[in-house]
Amino acid sequence: MKLASLKEGRDGRLVVVSRDLQQACHAEGIAPTLQAALDHWDECERALRALYQRLNRGECNMAFAFAPGSCAAPLPRAYQWADGSAYVSHIELVRKARGADMPPAFWTDPLMYQGMSDGFLGPCDDIALANESWGIDFEGEVAVITGDVPMGITAEQAHPHIRLLMLVNDVSLRNLIPAELAKGFGFFQSKPATACSPVAVTPDELGTYWHHGRVHHRLRVLLNHQLFGEPEAGVDMTFGFDQLIAHASLSRRLGAGTIIGSGTVSNRDEHSGACCIAERRTRELLNTGAASTPFMRFGDRVRMEMFDEQGQSIFGAIDQQLVPYRGPAT
Amino acid sequence: MKLASLKEGRDGRLVVVSRDLQQACHAEGIAPTLQAALDHWDECERALRALYQRLNRGECNMAFAFAPGSCAAPLPRAYQWADGSAYVSHIELVRKARGADMPPAFWTDPLMYQGMSDGFLGPCDDIALANESWGIDFEGEVAVITGDVPMGITAEQAHPHIRLLMLVNDVSLRNLIPAELAKGFGFFQSKPATACSPVAVTPDELGTYWHHGRVHHRLRVLLNHQLFGEPEAGVDMTFGFDQLIAHASLSRRLGAGTIIGSGTVSNRDEHSGACCIAERRTRELLNTGAASTPFMRFGDRVRMEMFDEQGQSIFGAIDQQLVPYRGPAT
Repeated sequence: MKLASLKEGRDGRLVVVSRDLQQACHAEGIAPTLQAALDHWDECERALRALYQRLNRGECNMAFAFAPGSCAAPLPRAYQWADGSAYVSHIELVRKARGADMPPAFWTDPLMYQGMSDGFLGPCDDIALANESWGIDFEGEVAVITGDVPMGITAEQAHPHIRLLMLVNDVSLRNLIPAELAKGFGFFQSKPATACSPVAVTPDELGTYWHHGRVHHRLRVLLNHQLFGEPEAGVDMTFGFDQLIAHASLSRRLGAGTIIGSGTVSNRDEHSGACCIAERRTRELLNTGAASTPFMRFGDRVRMEMFDEQGQSIFGAIDQQLVPYRGPAT
Repeated sequence: MKLASLKEGRDGRLVVVSRDLQQACHAEGIAPTLQAALDHWDECERALRALYQRLNRGECNMAFAFAPGSCAAPLPRAYQWADGSAYVSHIELVRKARGADMPPAFWTDPLMYQGMSDGFLGPCDDIALANESWGIDFEGEVAVITGDVPMGITAEQAHPHIRLLMLVNDVSLRNLIPAELAKGFGFFQSKPATACSPVAVTPDELGTYWHHGRVHHRLRVLLNHQLFGEPEAGVDMTFGFDQLIAHASLSRRLGAGTIIGSGTVSNRDEHSGACCIAERRTRELLNTGAASTPFMRFGDRVRMEMFDEQGQSIFGAIDQQLVPYRGPAT
């Protein structure tokens, strides 16, 4: 099943989207918003799936053309966004570039930070930021949306709590990160709003490409229409989403609609390219002694998409332009 | 105006509470939940204030006795919880105890972390955690709830966006913090669910005790019915809430219902006592060479309250017992 939220009010308007992303249908009478559906999943799931089947068979009278540009994030605002950093070879690479060893525990104890969840960008929304000199970067990731997760569950117990998957662009301000992390409290100003793919899908949509809590498709990232990277999201993912959820729930329950991110998708094989500029710069530094690819400039456009084995886009594309923020209206 | 949320569903049921905290009245017909009121503040505020005035005059037919024990947090789940650490002399003290100098920038650039907001504890809810050895501590804080805040505002521009104030108990797992912060991504597992006072109040309720973005009353903290501390919350607060909001909004807008915390209230004057065990232990270490006060043990009870100049409780009391969490139901 594929779900999206059309832009409307603060929480969007839930629609069911056909498998080929061509048609959509309002979920009226089932749940007004995706958050409402997640809050009452057991009561809503069957009806949503029935509507999805009718839509795919062309039997939905109220269907209309699906337009990703009219989409908000599947959850335009959420109660929790916890972003892991599950591709540990990526962390190792970045640390190597600055001459730092990586603690061995990083292979067994996931990194995770609490991100801002009160406002996600829609898939085609501009990234509006005040200052190019902040070192604006994208990060292509996979994320899951959970149902209610009890405190203290194991990775094995986590699987049935995964409701949906989507892609995210975790925008990062690289030049603000060193000073912010040096303060010791983690990211805050250096992590502005994150964008989400138009569509979130249930795990069964991925068939055999979803196993061990990992998505085994390539994440294709374009910068200004040029291929930037297309690593396979399952290969070098040290921690599956089941393990990330178990990590997150050690000392807290997770409310329905919690979003858990994979961290920047990355492969050891550098021929796969990168899903963020920072990784490419790191490889340039290691290979040539200098990072030559600049961070994003106003006007740049980043696109992220994942395709199934038939070449069909699974989640639709994140496709965003970086624009200058002109300050608060006064 | 004083507002609370009775336990009901995921978001509670909004009630207006009388100034003396004796009576309450449902806000039906105005807004079903506090989040809904914050989402539509301009449309709701006048009607809520009118109801509050009738309630205070004893003219509200539907009034009933207000029972803090039936309260959820004012926002049982919120879209953002950003906790500052605005009492810099507290940070300086803690660092001094471990022989670390404090960077001078800490006096001008606030520390802030993104906390979990998907589930706040009600004022009288048990703190249920699995492991006493985590070093379970309380932190008494003041917090504000904002309306919609544009990105990039100044501290001066922040003031009108402060809708409500409340108290919070930012539960912290001291023995998990060092390893977690050493990983570089900030707090996650070491910051379980935070509790809130029964009532959130508009700034005008504080009269002249609210100025320069600071609350000039003492926060009284009891551990097992013994006075633990009662520092004045305004005195040594290096950054006012206006400055904390400006810091938070540098690279993001803040959605309505964002909660911004002060960090543990602390005075330089050690006769004021402490609002967390860690601070008392730090002073013990500096004064005697050893920390003697243990962290919380199962069965311990912590109470936090703030009184006005007439001795009236402003926000009601946070009053919680620490109990063992027995693991997820299977």
